[in-house]
Amino acid sequence: MIDPRTASGLRDLGPSVAVPRERLTTTFRAVFASFGFTPIETPHIERMDVLTGKGAGSDEVLRQIFEVVNKGGERGELALRFDLTVPLARFISKHIDELGVPFKRYAIGSVFRGERPAKGRFREFVQCDFDILGTESAFADAETAHVIHDSLAAAGIPEFTISINNRKILDGFLESIAAGGRSAAVLRSLDKLAKIGSEGVRDELTGRRRRKEIDSADDSADEQAAKPRIDDLTSDKNEQAFTESRSELAEEPPLNLDQADRLLDFVEAGKGRYDALDYLAAIVKDFPTAVAGIENLRTILNLLDSVGVPERRVRVDSALARGLDYYTGVVFETTVNGWERFGSVSSGGRYDNLAGLFTSRRIPGVGASIGLDRLTALMDEAGLLKHQANAGGVLVVQFPGVDARVSASIAARLRRIGIAAEVYPDPIAMGKQLGYGSARGRAFAVIVGPDEAAKGTFNLRDLGTRKERRDLPLDRLEDEAIAAIGVTK
Amino acid sequence: MIDPRTASGLRDLGPSVAVPRERLTTTFRAVFASFGFTPIETPHIERMDVLTGKGAGSDEVLRQIFEVVNKGGERGELALRFDLTVPLARFISKHIDELGVPFKRYAIGSVFRGERPAKGRFREFVQCDFDILGTESAFADAETAHVIHDSLAAAGIPEFTISINNRKILDGFLESIAAGGRSAAVLRSLDKLAKIGSEGVRDELTGRRRRKEIDSADDSADEQAAKPRIDDLTSDKNEQAFTESRSELAEEPPLNLDQADRLLDFVEAGKGRYDALDYLAAIVKDFPTAVAGIENLRTILNLLDSVGVPERRVRVDSALARGLDYYTGVVFETTVNGWERFGSVSSGGRYDNLAGLFTSRRIPGVGASIGLDRLTALMDEAGLLKHQANAGGVLVVQFPGVDARVSASIAARLRRIGIAAEVYPDPIAMGKQLGYGSARGRAFAVIVGPDEAAKGTFNLRDLGTRKERRDLPLDRLEDEAIAAIGVTK
Repeated sequence: MIDPRTASGLRDLGPSVAVPRERLTTTFRAVFASFGFTPIETPHIERMDVLTGKGAGSDEVLRQIFEVVNKGGERGELALRFDLTVPLARFISKHIDELGVPFKRYAIGSVFRGERPAKGRFREFVQCDFDILGTESAFADAETAHVIHDSLAAAGIPEFTISINNRKILDGFLESIAAGGRSAAVLRSLDKLAKIGSEGVRDELTGRRRRKEIDSADDSADEQAAKPRIDDLTSDKNEQAFTESRSELAEEPPLNLDQADRLLDFVEAGKGRYDALDYLAAIVKDFPTAVAGIENLRTILNLLDSVGVPERRVRVDSALARGLDYYTGVVFETTVNGWERFGSVSSGGRYDNLAGLFTSRRIPGVGASIGLDRLTALMDEAGLLKHQANAGGVLVVQFPGVDARVSASIAARLRRIGIAAEVYPDPIAMGKQLGYGSARGRAFAVIVGPDEAAKGTFNLRDLGTRKERRDLPLDRLEDEAIAAIGVTK
Repeated sequence: MIDPRTASGLRDLGPSVAVPRERLTTTFRAVFASFGFTPIETPHIERMDVLTGKGAGSDEVLRQIFEVVNKGGERGELALRFDLTVPLARFISKHIDELGVPFKRYAIGSVFRGERPAKGRFREFVQCDFDILGTESAFADAETAHVIHDSLAAAGIPEFTISINNRKILDGFLESIAAGGRSAAVLRSLDKLAKIGSEGVRDELTGRRRRKEIDSADDSADEQAAKPRIDDLTSDKNEQAFTESRSELAEEPPLNLDQADRLLDFVEAGKGRYDALDYLAAIVKDFPTAVAGIENLRTILNLLDSVGVPERRVRVDSALARGLDYYTGVVFETTVNGWERFGSVSSGGRYDNLAGLFTSRRIPGVGASIGLDRLTALMDEAGLLKHQANAGGVLVVQFPGVDARVSASIAARLRRIGIAAEVYPDPIAMGKQLGYGSARGRAFAVIVGPDEAAKGTFNLRDLGTRKERRDLPLDRLEDEAIAAIGVTK
């Protein structure tokens, strides 16, 4: 006998999870399509050089890649995708002439990372990505937040907060305090604000605390919901910047104490909505880069207000650092109110040049990703999945001695009017059949006994209350089932 | 620059294919669910020993397996699934106690086989599987055909034929001609009937033609739509049978000339419906195995008739051999009328003991698989995909000089009443925006010029006829859009 377990870090999803997951992806597809996004599909297997760039991928990612080897093939040629953004970059580079821009695509699929197995961390997880390629308009930035909003609202998340920031604001602010060019190091520290507090960030930025101690406390749990660090992963330029920021730190701290204090005041006060933007604008008004970043966020707030996204759900957060090191404009993170410890369930942002590895054409874009596994885990723990897993519909019982065709044809009629109808496959004891129906989450049972079959009447039993409406002729049965189950067809 | 091509044998699917594929899978999910099937998900990566059994997998399959290697890991531990049935067997063995039987699951997902790349043959393809586990009832057999039928009908396939056969009929017939136990060899030859004709089959069965010559002409194009040969792939017993049938052939031909002629007459005449069953029954009436097989098919026809499946779509075909060597009861194959050269688009059957590799519990089952890639390719060539790829909905134009919030809020209103509404992200020349809308398959454009925005009126332009309804106030616009696009909400 072979042990029927999954491989390490992988898992089976039974109906209680798979049913609500499927409803979620159906919901997301519908929302994405309603905004004009169309689906594309790319293979799960990519060429290794596509995924790792010109030998430039970071150690972290290369360590996590699952190689794929064809029988008789060599190692190092193929691998499983670790996100949907690198494949998108490859796809658009190859197909841009036939597709044209703007191009709005969504993709929902599994990605693979060989992370150390841990609770809530899986080696295969599903990302729901949508991106608008070929435009630099703030309209597209706002639409990205709008799609995040409508997707989570449609998924039944009661309250959530989309935090927005723009890399240009921090860049301009650092110029204003004579610390231009230190963004990479500053971002790395700011990213830990929630974890180590402003004291810790100040100590780290000013060299009073060694980065390494703090890094070791860091974990990358947020990776699975965050948009991939595409530039960080694959571009020479950013790999270089990453290395530089490391060595820079080793040599001298990025900020002095005064600069660090001003930075922390700036990001602390830069939270809210238009008020926060006004505050930030007053400080950096002479630095055009920062002003442009602030105006971008103002336009986004304006547009989201105009389409009825509730104010409370979109907030400027100038301390939001994650992603700023690889996105080039706006960034998004989304937390569910009261469940912030789960991290961001949808993240994204704008990139100037998505496909620089594959084409000399500059393709700007903006997009976000919903982390299905994290969202499902959160909804499960928040009790938001329970009723969704309920199958509904009816069980049609097979009564011993009654021709199976009676049950089969009733079920077929019910299906035709839009009611899911399952027939128990064997005419076993009725109690067992009803127990099966309850266990499977059916709402009602249609009971056909020999007398009923002869008279052409049926009983409709509520599997919750166990009440029965008896002796219904077929038309009445249909009407009652429609009324009880609430089919709109 | 890195070449943005896919790896060999893999492909990108752009919107023109991905949109109708997504509609098909949505349709299949709805049909499966209406019969009481629930989804499960298993990982794309499985342990190698799960996929290959105890070192017993056939050479063919082992050659096609994609190994997966974690960085720093060893080869031979992990692989990509090559079908959804082996994972189902593993899944049910592990979870049967919590899930109970009967258990009806569906699964739609990518599977991977390193076949030699060729036209229409891909190394990643999608199977849509549904199975009923834990029952031996003919009711479940009939339901499997019923689900195939309703799925293809709902997919918009005009006419198709579900062929059914039952392994027991041939087994019993071979007994009746004193050739019991030769089933494996006979099936291998019968499977080639369409390709080499009855002369060829006769020659092969009687040793007048060497099997090898014929085998070399064989190809496995049908594999991608057929249900996996699970027993053939993974069980010691069948691997042994396979080897035996090979060696048996090398030594002596399975049938003599008289036996071969009687076999060919039998399978030739055993095609049709009840008439064919009556014919077969008369010949094998003294052989209970064959009689049971015939009665199974009779029950299936009866049940399918009772639920309104048109007679012309279900036919007994006693020459149907594919799958009989690994299924243990009924088998199904489905061809689209006029497109038989594409092979079977949905195949399946009954197995006595699905999970014998993983558990000592005997778990019988019946199910089938729809080959999404083959079906899509067929529908594409038959012109059945065209209108399905049409995105519909409206493009809302951004007029230069008009506040973007006007377009954004109109689009949001239209979405709320169920109309897909895309706003062009930049206020460029209107002709270009309209061209984009047409290219993307939008049915209408909503045009907002500066005058219209001031007056609060809009034009609705049919992107096909170029006719415009002008100066519509917002309420009228909604009504007209609903009427034109046919939203039922």
